[in-house]
Amino acid sequence: MADRWFDYGFRVQPHHTDYGGVVWHGTYIQWMETARVECLRDMKFAFEDFVAAGYDLPVVDLQLRYHQPLMLGAAGLVRTQLDVGRGVKLKWLYEIYDTTQEKQQLCVTGHVVLVPIDMAKRRIARHLPADLQTMFDSLQQYFST
Amino acid sequence: MADRWFDYGFRVQPHHTDYGGVVWHGTYIQWMETARVECLRDMKFAFEDFVAAGYDLPVVDLQLRYHQPLMLGAAGLVRTQLDVGRGVKLKWLYEIYDTTQEKQQLCVTGHVVLVPIDMAKRRIARHLPADLQTMFDSLQQYFST
Amino acid sequence: MADRWFDYGFRVQPHHTDYGGVVWHGTYIQWMETARVECLRDMKFAFEDFVAAGYDLPVVDLQLRYHQPLMLGAAGLVRTQLDVGRGVKLKWLYEIYDTTQEKQQLCVTGHVVLVPIDMAKRRIARHLPADLQTMFDSLQQYFST
Amino acid sequence: MADRWFDYGFRVQPHHTDYGGVVWHGTYIQWMETARVECLRDMKFAFEDFVAAGYDLPVVDLQLRYHQPLMLGAAGLVRTQLDVGRGVKLKWLYEIYDTTQEKQQLCVTGHVVLVPIDMAKRRIARHLPADLQTMFDSLQQYFST
Repeated sequence: MADRWFDYGFRVQPHHTDYGGVVWHGTYIQWMETARVECLRDMKFAFEDFVAAGYDLPVVDLQLRYHQPLMLGAAGLVRTQLDVGRGVKLKWLYEIYDTTQEKQQLCVTGHVVLVPIDMAKRRIARHLPADLQTMFDSLQQYFST
Repeated sequence: MADRWFDYGFRVQPHHTDYGGVVWHGTYIQWMETARVECLRDMKFAFEDFVAAGYDLPVVDLQLRYHQPLMLGAAGLVRTQLDVGRGVKLKWLYEIYDTTQEKQQLCVTGHVVLVPIDMAKRRIARHLPADLQTMFDSLQQYFST
Repeated sequence: MADRWFDYGFRVQPHHTDYGGVVWHGTYIQWMETARVECLRDMKFAFEDFVAAGYDLPVVDLQLRYHQPLMLGAAGLVRTQLDVGRGVKLKWLYEIYDTTQEKQQLCVTGHVVLVPIDMAKRRIARHLPADLQTMFDSLQQYFST
Repeated sequence: MADRWFDYGFRVQPHHTDYGGVVWHGTYIQWMETARVECLRDMKFAFEDFVAAGYDLPVVDLQLRYHQPLMLGAAGLVRTQLDVGRGVKLKWLYEIYDTTQEKQQLCVTGHVVLVPIDMAKRRIARHLPADLQTMFDSLQQYFST
């Protein structure tokens, strides 16, 4: 079975923290979004082109478990992979690590589910134009092999 | 059985939206936090005093389902209630509505679980000082009657 | 000479703070935006309608001076007024106070300049449709009397 | 005369945008902060260590001019340099570019002024411990040669 992950590294800046000196719990959602958009970009799927073509990919479900806090100045890593075989839905699994020390620490786990929407029809896009469909297919392929 | 909710109203401002003209999915976390902090304040539990006393209430679990988007300029309402009887953990249930039209629309449902931490000992605070414990107890009481 | 101010009150929540336990310096921009959008709404100028009509009001200039920090849990107040007589540009002046104690403390001063844009033509809207122009005029009027 | 700049590249993600499909005007403050913290880190000045040593560097003045918007998916670049010779104050100059096209476009210019604070004494730190002072001096040196 495949176990491919896309990695996105970040650094905890002052604006990511709260009064506790650690990352505010809602901040992780930004890094998770960045990680999946950059994963798509890596596969020649530019999300801004998808939007320009009249589609969107809203999040319909989100779940997060917080195990350890990430502190100001920490080096962090988002690992994400597509959980393939869910039809039109895209379910991304996440693990977020503190990589400041040599021994990485798992800080947050979670997932996000997105659904492609045809913005003109305001409904789920079960059939995409050929070029966009090709991108979706290669995404599924990448994470299933 | 009790069905008490604490209500917190808000308005969707430009900084809450994304390129789609609707609320960015991570923005809701802010309103959910504000609603529960203001609910506590309403019960004479000032969160900043809890922090000053050496405690914290980090979120350990968060789940959200997005049913309908909220648009720029929309009037919104966060409804929250404590799901009592979970020992030291505080589980808050959420419903977020679009109240712009007379017929309210349910947009987001979810929950958040928080755990009191003794910051000096860096562990779960199973026993709080008497005055803080009293606040926790009256919170449980309020939502169970 | 007139000295009218529009007042918008807020409370400092955890997500507004940084590691220092005070409001992160960029957070004020959100409250300043909310204050001016709500000031417009108060004058029957719904910003979302302005956008829906094909216009926008981007910020072209912003200046802030930070005098005192605002702490977690503090009650704050944004005061804003339009500096009239600048033609098509809207210059909003700001004062942000800590109102937690009876004696209010001035924390931040600044201003923001916005320019109406015709989104279809992608340029400055020197002439607005009659109904929008009426709103602009009454705004100028309100702050000049 | 020296003209050294520290460069920090970024990508415009969905959470950076507003209803207009462009970067919300307050978002730039985050990238500006990241750029200067990473510039300091590059010079072996870890901001988190400065904070742990009992100091802070709050922003006391901020000015921004917006020339062109940055769109969803755009590649951006923050260029910053220290305007040396201002005593204890650190004034950072900024230029933010859209680097998506080969011909870079200047989008935002501005500056930020920070002041070192001794957190125990709650006042301006005119004299820093030797190791911190060395970092400040080498920072000044770097940008003046």
